[in-house]
Amino acid sequence: MDYVYGPGRNHLFVPGPVNIPEPVLRAMNRNNEDYRSPAIPAMTKTLLEDVKKIFKTTTGTPFLIPTTGTGAWESALTNTLSPGDRTVSFLIGQFSLLWIDQQQRLNFKVDVVESEWGQGANLNILASKIAEDTAHTIKAVCIVHNETATGVTNNLATVREILDHYRHPALFLVDGVSSICALDFRMDEWGVDVALTGSQKALSLPTGIGIVCASPKALEASKTAKSVRVFFDWNDYLKFYKMGTFWPYTPSIQLLYGLRAALDLLFEEGLDNVIARHSRLGKATRLAVEAWGLKNCTQKEEWVSDTVTAVVVPPYIDSTEIVRRAWKRYNLSLGLGLNKVAGKVFRIGHLGNLNELQLLGCLAGVEMVLRDVGYPVKLGSGVAAACAYLQNNTPLIPSRI
Amino acid sequence: MDYVYGPGRNHLFVPGPVNIPEPVLRAMNRNNEDYRSPAIPAMTKTLLEDVKKIFKTTTGTPFLIPTTGTGAWESALTNTLSPGDRTVSFLIGQFSLLWIDQQQRLNFKVDVVESEWGQGANLNILASKIAEDTAHTIKAVCIVHNETATGVTNNLATVREILDHYRHPALFLVDGVSSICALDFRMDEWGVDVALTGSQKALSLPTGIGIVCASPKALEASKTAKSVRVFFDWNDYLKFYKMGTFWPYTPSIQLLYGLRAALDLLFEEGLDNVIARHSRLGKATRLAVEAWGLKNCTQKEEWVSDTVTAVVVPPYIDSTEIVRRAWKRYNLSLGLGLNKVAGKVFRIGHLGNLNELQLLGCLAGVEMVLRDVGYPVKLGSGVAAACAYLQNNTPLIPSRI
Amino acid sequence: MDYVYGPGRNHLFVPGPVNIPEPVLRAMNRNNEDYRSPAIPAMTKTLLEDVKKIFKTTTGTPFLIPTTGTGAWESALTNTLSPGDRTVSFLIGQFSLLWIDQQQRLNFKVDVVESEWGQGANLNILASKIAEDTAHTIKAVCIVHNETATGVTNNLATVREILDHYRHPALFLVDGVSSICALDFRMDEWGVDVALTGSQKALSLPTGIGIVCASPKALEASKTAKSVRVFFDWNDYLKFYKMGTFWPYTPSIQLLYGLRAALDLLFEEGLDNVIARHSRLGKATRLAVEAWGLKNCTQKEEWVSDTVTAVVVPPYIDSTEIVRRAWKRYNLSLGLGLNKVAGKVFRIGHLGNLNELQLLGCLAGVEMVLRDVGYPVKLGSGVAAACAYLQNNTPLIPSRI
Amino acid sequence: MDYVYGPGRNHLFVPGPVNIPEPVLRAMNRNNEDYRSPAIPAMTKTLLEDVKKIFKTTTGTPFLIPTTGTGAWESALTNTLSPGDRTVSFLIGQFSLLWIDQQQRLNFKVDVVESEWGQGANLNILASKIAEDTAHTIKAVCIVHNETATGVTNNLATVREILDHYRHPALFLVDGVSSICALDFRMDEWGVDVALTGSQKALSLPTGIGIVCASPKALEASKTAKSVRVFFDWNDYLKFYKMGTFWPYTPSIQLLYGLRAALDLLFEEGLDNVIARHSRLGKATRLAVEAWGLKNCTQKEEWVSDTVTAVVVPPYIDSTEIVRRAWKRYNLSLGLGLNKVAGKVFRIGHLGNLNELQLLGCLAGVEMVLRDVGYPVKLGSGVAAACAYLQNNTPLIPSRI
Repeated sequence: MDYVYGPGRNHLFVPGPVNIPEPVLRAMNRNNEDYRSPAIPAMTKTLLEDVKKIFKTTTGTPFLIPTTGTGAWESALTNTLSPGDRTVSFLIGQFSLLWIDQQQRLNFKVDVVESEWGQGANLNILASKIAEDTAHTIKAVCIVHNETATGVTNNLATVREILDHYRHPALFLVDGVSSICALDFRMDEWGVDVALTGSQKALSLPTGIGIVCASPKALEASKTAKSVRVFFDWNDYLKFYKMGTFWPYTPSIQLLYGLRAALDLLFEEGLDNVIARHSRLGKATRLAVEAWGLKNCTQKEEWVSDTVTAVVVPPYIDSTEIVRRAWKRYNLSLGLGLNKVAGKVFRIGHLGNLNELQLLGCLAGVEMVLRDVGYPVKLGSGVAAACAYLQNNTPLIPSRI
Repeated sequence: MDYVYGPGRNHLFVPGPVNIPEPVLRAMNRNNEDYRSPAIPAMTKTLLEDVKKIFKTTTGTPFLIPTTGTGAWESALTNTLSPGDRTVSFLIGQFSLLWIDQQQRLNFKVDVVESEWGQGANLNILASKIAEDTAHTIKAVCIVHNETATGVTNNLATVREILDHYRHPALFLVDGVSSICALDFRMDEWGVDVALTGSQKALSLPTGIGIVCASPKALEASKTAKSVRVFFDWNDYLKFYKMGTFWPYTPSIQLLYGLRAALDLLFEEGLDNVIARHSRLGKATRLAVEAWGLKNCTQKEEWVSDTVTAVVVPPYIDSTEIVRRAWKRYNLSLGLGLNKVAGKVFRIGHLGNLNELQLLGCLAGVEMVLRDVGYPVKLGSGVAAACAYLQNNTPLIPSRI
Repeated sequence: MDYVYGPGRNHLFVPGPVNIPEPVLRAMNRNNEDYRSPAIPAMTKTLLEDVKKIFKTTTGTPFLIPTTGTGAWESALTNTLSPGDRTVSFLIGQFSLLWIDQQQRLNFKVDVVESEWGQGANLNILASKIAEDTAHTIKAVCIVHNETATGVTNNLATVREILDHYRHPALFLVDGVSSICALDFRMDEWGVDVALTGSQKALSLPTGIGIVCASPKALEASKTAKSVRVFFDWNDYLKFYKMGTFWPYTPSIQLLYGLRAALDLLFEEGLDNVIARHSRLGKATRLAVEAWGLKNCTQKEEWVSDTVTAVVVPPYIDSTEIVRRAWKRYNLSLGLGLNKVAGKVFRIGHLGNLNELQLLGCLAGVEMVLRDVGYPVKLGSGVAAACAYLQNNTPLIPSRI
Repeated sequence: MDYVYGPGRNHLFVPGPVNIPEPVLRAMNRNNEDYRSPAIPAMTKTLLEDVKKIFKTTTGTPFLIPTTGTGAWESALTNTLSPGDRTVSFLIGQFSLLWIDQQQRLNFKVDVVESEWGQGANLNILASKIAEDTAHTIKAVCIVHNETATGVTNNLATVREILDHYRHPALFLVDGVSSICALDFRMDEWGVDVALTGSQKALSLPTGIGIVCASPKALEASKTAKSVRVFFDWNDYLKFYKMGTFWPYTPSIQLLYGLRAALDLLFEEGLDNVIARHSRLGKATRLAVEAWGLKNCTQKEEWVSDTVTAVVVPPYIDSTEIVRRAWKRYNLSLGLGLNKVAGKVFRIGHLGNLNELQLLGCLAGVEMVLRDVGYPVKLGSGVAAACAYLQNNTPLIPSRI
């Protein structure tokens, strides 16, 4: 059944889907159940309550939609906006590009604010646009918290500050696909109106749940939003929430139990510890890249991402070949460079249920692949740099103290 | 983790999600993988090829969409029709009602052909409408092959005959959610333009894949269909099909392997044998219902369903109480009556990876529950009737001969 | 990988190995672990404490031996007896026969007390032997609590009464393989010196742990017992118990977690409820056998077994054919008749994590098989008799009230 | 259920039990089955045939015993020897010591040939003993192929040469627990009479099967061997082999399917490739140890082990603390020093289903731990040395070429 069996564990370092921890695999290893029995609603209730914690919201309303991140985007947009609405959106990499494409195909008028790939969203331009828009024609600011293609993290607090400064009522829509549960994210504090993620990212589940969380203002907007929607319509959920049965259509029983387990693990470790762990692994990765003499695609320190690092390869090397060899020779899965940076970068995803030694195995693997493709890396250099940092900064595992 | 543990196996007899066979559970018990490695496209290719067999099509193009049946409906409609298009749709139960509701919310003009719940689609009315529609204003005939709420199977061959008789070019869209892989379904022979099902039905997987299959004519229609769609847009898939990477967004690795295993099991048993098994279990169930002195919600033999039987209870009994007690006392999951037939029927789903003895355990359970709620059933009567039929009609298991 | 796939669930009604509940399968679905880390001893400690509860002992010392029931027997005997020691043992079926064979091969002098197969141990003869043995040459009374081959349960309380009445110091060794966790068993109250079971029986685990529990008197005896033993030597365990590391050699990590889950399920249901459930299922089975017009191999009511029923077939039928057809046609696994009763009985195991509807499915299957082989059973008769009893005696599932 | 959850994968580098590959976990994720149905014997037959390949024997007879390595030892000894028989056995570490202890407790007269821990078996002494023993009082030479406590591999070919040189008929009994399936082992070529291993070692299964393989000469010896044995008696197996049902008592269904999968993986990779992989990982580990400035417990190159490396720590460090911290801080499981070398060595097990990057993650972890406990290792040094070797010597994964 495995098309390409190789001995030992695959080192899975694409920035999603990520490694699933064993307790979650176990929780999902089960037969189907009647989702209309009292059991599933009882569990769903705990999920909806607990999932708010990963968004750091108490006022938001979460939706667990049987879809992917792309579907979650569509849910966020169609429930809050009407065709012809003006949005501001930042083009800084492949995923922000795809979201913009979706916004255009859904017939919104998108003010695209483009930056070079490797830079963050240009918030100065946002500030001007917001300042100028005294008529409030901008209905939503759409921003990807962490651009997975380039390893760039945007500053959401600043977006909120800009909107507040100009008392602009635009909705604040955030793609948190590769950030939520891994990076610092504060829905209520930052006044985010819709935030979303996918189960296969930092939650460390299989693909299959698009998790969308709507602020009261977003819910209010949904009452008048004229975008056509059925499958993604929040209203169908809200109707079933009121009835206490929760599901307008059949959920995946396995993913619900998996989500329950994933949340339990997150809370056992402590959400802040989880975020600190991502910060630690991100920093270690960047130190390794530096030691290799390679450049991070991310152009400034303020944008570096703790969930994914895009590594720029020298012009004489095709990064696609690095990814190919990593998989073929070392059972290591790295992320390809996408679109504009295809062939130019490879990506190390360091998000989800992951620890120091897994990352170090990956980094050692990258070093060997770099040599394989002709880059004269000093073997051990990146691992040494990462170890030096990690050995000083890794806490004892709390349950084992 | 089990909110409501009870000893022994749950007898899962809702008409979906259904029992998952162990080989499929095993196939899905795995970590995530990079879906951009060569392995997943290689497997996907086999899936797309093999999934056509369950639709009995050689010319259709299948889409494995990370969604539910509701999403699969939306995919079928939005890719082939434009807002304002006229459809003919048959209201014969809760699921046809929901599909009609979706059609209306997607801004099609729906000619609703209503029948009493328990009757099949009124194809005479269809015939008149088609006959009258010489201007070809009807763009699609939408029909649920098997209405899961009432246990009614519609005659799709007749729909095709009507269209052919009047040389009407309307698209023929079929919800095969509770039929495909269980009932006789022939996409090519019957000229179905879009057929769809969900993974959690007769395929016996978890919820999470909406399987949609489009005829060449449907694909052609998708080029001009003006319904707004992004997540459900076939075109995004077709683009990736051409590239040989297949996936416009992250699929569920686990469900792909599960689907591979499910198809393997279907082909090992033989699709015709699978359909014969459903026919056998359906017949046995109906004989039991008759022996209990109860009525099948399905009003005529021509419409009886081999995947679900809705049993009408006497007026002095609330069928909801039957479902509740079955679960609370016997760990038996039966289907509720929905909407118009709430409280009036309970449903026995007999689809998916299921055998004679599992059904007989269910039937024995139903007998006890009927007594629990005050219906004077003769204990053993239904089981006896079912056994008499099954003992004469069950073949040896081929692999064990 | 399945050599003989058949659709649907196998109805597993051999008297062991028995059905494993999903929560136990999940608990065992895991990688290996270092058994010398602090985690495994910490868990083992809870297992050793909790496993005593299934023996109803507070003074016993349990051993979790990586072996089968046969090995557990050997552990019980070699740790407490010396070559040449006299034992009294009861030959009433295949498993008591095998134990006697083992006792003889281990060089004990066995007083074999034989009864017709289908009868219980002849305790009158035991009483005479004990009465006569004023010199206390009898070192141990060995008895199978429940003879799995014939479905006969012996009265252990009477054995204790006899020993007490004559103030005889013989050790009281009990094979509880198909009784413990299913039948009423009271190690301390009945003064049992060694009791044992296997993981694959009423505990509903895979094969692999022989659970042996020794009274203080048995432990004392082990200090002077001269039977040669190494792998089965309790002393090696006791040494590691003192060190708090518990394991003289590598245990199965998976089975330890499985045992933890199995005990949790037993305690959640309540051990007395578990025993009552077995009593209920045993009674229902016997009522079905009676309704079929067949005889229970067990010759008197006082010996009937609530974990296994051996059904005598008419002389013109070969019971082996029943077992063969059940598996080949209905995916039903029944127990063969063994040795003296080969061809004459088939066995229905009704022990472990099992519920009413599973049993009824099995009984319906047996009815069809009986017809298949030419026995003119009235279809539905056994199920009706069982249902009549169960419908009156099955409580609500506590967690679902 | 996890007593000591830590984020990410545990790096399991004890020399057993070892990492279980996912395909094996999947194969074992299943309900019990009737082991007397035709299916299990059919599968067992393939196992017995295929398991001979891992011993490189065509004439041997394998036994799959539900026990551990300790039980496998007992099976090897008691089936071939009689109390009072003289054996030659080599004391070179904790596991050879335990086997000698067992031999003594089983009442054999053991000529113990002791070497310093870290040295191999002294075969010169064996040669003298064999030379002197013209009366053939030595009935067996017992040797541990790979001493797991010190990482010492003995030269079995030389043992055979000595016996052949002196035409000595002693049985040649080999503990291959941490060698078979990982190191070069040739039962037929080296004239080994009994070889044995445990499922939890290089086969990468859970604990629970002791695999013992007997030469025709060993089988012949078993006919007259007078050691008392029942559970471990080969004869009971041979009886059932003849009947074609194979099992004298209940096997673990899960382990049989697991073994089937494990063998399939071994043969897919190719047994010689598996051995080459172990050689590669062993070499890489030793290069790392050297780079760290530490000593291998193994005193000469001729004895180095490709399955486990025991690393000697400086006298001012307690190796127990290394193992403890590795687990507590980095989720890394290393092997303790045992008995004489307790506190003085820690062990890195590099056997079973394992690849380069997993090992490198472990080595990086060891470097950090060494720093934690005050040893001034140069971070990255061991990884660099290992990478340099691996990058030159790791072939492409055959299935991915």
